Amino acid sequence: MLIYLDNSATTRQYDQVTTEMVRVMESDYGNPSSLHRLGLSTEKLVRKARKEIARSIGVGEDEIFITSGGTEADNAAILGIAFSRRRNGNKIITSKIEHPAVLESCKRLERDGYEVVYLDVDKNGVVLIDQLKREIDHETILISIMHVNNEIGTIQPIEEIYRMKEEWNKANDSDILLHVDAIQSYGKLNLCGLHAELISLSGHKVHGPKGIGALYIKKGVRLDPIILGGGQEKGQRSGTENVPAIAGFGVAAARIINDQGKAARRIKSMKENLIYRIRHEIANIKINGNYGDGNLNVTDANESNDCEEGFSKIDLSWTSPSILNVSFLGIRGEVLLHSLEQEGIYVSTGSACSSNKKGQSHVLKEIGLNNMEIEGAIRFSLSEFNTQEDIDFTVDNLVIIVNKMRKLSSFR
Amino acid sequence: MLIYLDNSATTRQYDQVTTEMVRVMESDYGNPSSLHRLGLSTEKLVRKARKEIARSIGVGEDEIFITSGGTEADNAAILGIAFSRRRNGNKIITSKIEHPAVLESCKRLERDGYEVVYLDVDKNGVVLIDQLKREIDHETILISIMHVNNEIGTIQPIEEIYRMKEEWNKANDSDILLHVDAIQSYGKLNLCGLHAELISLSGHKVHGPKGIGALYIKKGVRLDPIILGGGQEKGQRSGTENVPAIAGFGVAAARIINDQGKAARRIKSMKENLIYRIRHEIANIKINGNYGDGNLNVTDANESNDCEEGFSKIDLSWTSPSILNVSFLGIRGEVLLHSLEQEGIYVSTGSACSSNKKGQSHVLKEIGLNNMEIEGAIRFSLSEFNTQEDIDFTVDNLVIIVNKMRKLSSFR
Repeated sequence: MLIYLDNSATTRQYDQVTTEMVRVMESDYGNPSSLHRLGLSTEKLVRKARKEIARSIGVGEDEIFITSGGTEADNAAILGIAFSRRRNGNKIITSKIEHPAVLESCKRLERDGYEVVYLDVDKNGVVLIDQLKREIDHETILISIMHVNNEIGTIQPIEEIYRMKEEWNKANDSDILLHVDAIQSYGKLNLCGLHAELISLSGHKVHGPKGIGALYIKKGVRLDPIILGGGQEKGQRSGTENVPAIAGFGVAAARIINDQGKAARRIKSMKENLIYRIRHEIANIKINGNYGDGNLNVTDANESNDCEEGFSKIDLSWTSPSILNVSFLGIRGEVLLHSLEQEGIYVSTGSACSSNKKGQSHVLKEIGLNNMEIEGAIRFSLSEFNTQEDIDFTVDNLVIIVNKMRKLSSFR
Repeated sequence: MLIYLDNSATTRQYDQVTTEMVRVMESDYGNPSSLHRLGLSTEKLVRKARKEIARSIGVGEDEIFITSGGTEADNAAILGIAFSRRRNGNKIITSKIEHPAVLESCKRLERDGYEVVYLDVDKNGVVLIDQLKREIDHETILISIMHVNNEIGTIQPIEEIYRMKEEWNKANDSDILLHVDAIQSYGKLNLCGLHAELISLSGHKVHGPKGIGALYIKKGVRLDPIILGGGQEKGQRSGTENVPAIAGFGVAAARIINDQGKAARRIKSMKENLIYRIRHEIANIKINGNYGDGNLNVTDANESNDCEEGFSKIDLSWTSPSILNVSFLGIRGEVLLHSLEQEGIYVSTGSACSSNKKGQSHVLKEIGLNNMEIEGAIRFSLSEFNTQEDIDFTVDNLVIIVNKMRKLSSFR
């Protein structure tokens, strides 16, 4: 029994992705820069994949630049714009709950003399738009806000942010850019039409290969490359192209195009079931993220049972369909994680990128959780490979384990 | 018929590498940072591979840091040291025939106010040691010299360079570091015992996966990371580990350990045959690289035939066993490349990293070749997958094609 509910950390590759990678590794092993046929045919593979990645987010293929993953894409966008627009200004605006790939890039820029403003978020994890409005000024060159938060799933109001900075640009003859880390939303939300000059994508979060990602750079936008050398990717990212992984990423992107959101809808209905059953069957939990005005704060299981209509208030349109973050009060998340693991259920206590380091989640802190709520937090992240049976089995076990653990620790 | 003689551009993966990658992609798809079993087992795979990579060059496993490839490793070493030692000095010494990954990093540093000295090379492509000695000073923080040149195969006197800078360090209580791009020597020369504080490696040049490389960083040496985020690789290289490729790289490294130079000896004997036959059967060629005092300059085939003992002077110990660069005078290399391709033979006109851009090879220029010699240059780069029959078939065709082309262009 293996129920993998840690899909925000990484996903299992589609078999079609693996098949294509093996084919490329065995037969199309040339270097795209080589002048002979073996080079040309790999160059074609890269072009085909680039087209599919571009189509999957509704942009031009000449606007997609391959990177070694999401982290590099975030770095390339932020450092690249900062270095190339040094003369325009020295201020970058981001939020306090961004991924470390963004936050650490910003810290590096601070060391180099840039000013970085880290926006606060409200209790649902939404960036404070008013604060952003106040911070945009003539020194600002870049705003970097993630689409979906990797720990709690909150969707940020990217359209509103984009419109706000466009209005400023028009009024002030300015050219502030917006970078969106869409790594957690890609494949789950429709990115076609998302307004931003720079968008980061990752392969392994959408059942594609690890070690591959992409940065969308709007036509006409120039940025300094951060990896330098042979001039691949039009000079934007040097190094021999990782053709098998690029081709595999293309296959995953094609699945996103053809799927037309069906997988996301199925995942969302599993998440609804997960929320419903947890709220009904486990007392003293807190669901973290943005669920509108639905009373998803600390609940009492019995009380919830009596108050069925309360659930109709839950608004799932402002969190990712695939991420559910729940605080089980009185429980240590890590212990719960390992107990679930005993039953073959794999979850996370936070993001993989920070969960193995000591210290609490910066995201849960920023949305104002107290220590007990942070300590008891578990992230369930679903994929299309999960089934409703997985969800039911998970809750069945959650109920038993949480009750047992609470009894042992004499919670309440 | 497919005779692949472009192994300096990239190699065909070992089947064992592919098999291991598929196993990992299908079964061990976790994120090493995840706390559950699926995370732990991938963490173990990374550790195992790191150990094998370390053993393959005779260093400690805690001194190996995974990168997305050789280019990133070069960038990480040069930019990383420059940024972290800004206070120690601002001078970097390299050579004029380094790989673009090194040269472009140096150019970036020049833009940032560093002084970079590009050493000249002699006609064999060997860096001028006397010039290096004169350039080392109190401002110098880093020397970056490649082990084997990717276009002509010349082996640089790394030991001499290391000793020279160590003597300076001792006499001046200084701490100049040596970075060696060993991407073309790895798997062909024994790197165990190679003295340097930083060594760049790449997976896909040794029948390992594309998109993966490593940087050896001598214990105690600190450098600023160039990719920032979740803190993987002890903070030296962030981003979800590319576990399948890392595991595959480990398999290739294990092959290097177990092979004990046997493959390189076989490759060298094929190269000897290639040189011998080309010199005997084709007039007006020039062999580029460092072959000691052996008269490998422009030859007349018949003359060579009469002067058999001349060949004994050829010293193959100062060039890579796998690379042979030959100028066929009066021929355009690109045309020869495509003619060979018609027969299923894949060669290169220079390095893959620059061959698809217009403009002449900087390496061939720096060793003093004239236009005709540069224009007629072909790089044969061998691997253990080649056979003596491949070499013979290649020369058989070379003779026919070169003679025909020269007749058409009425050369001489």
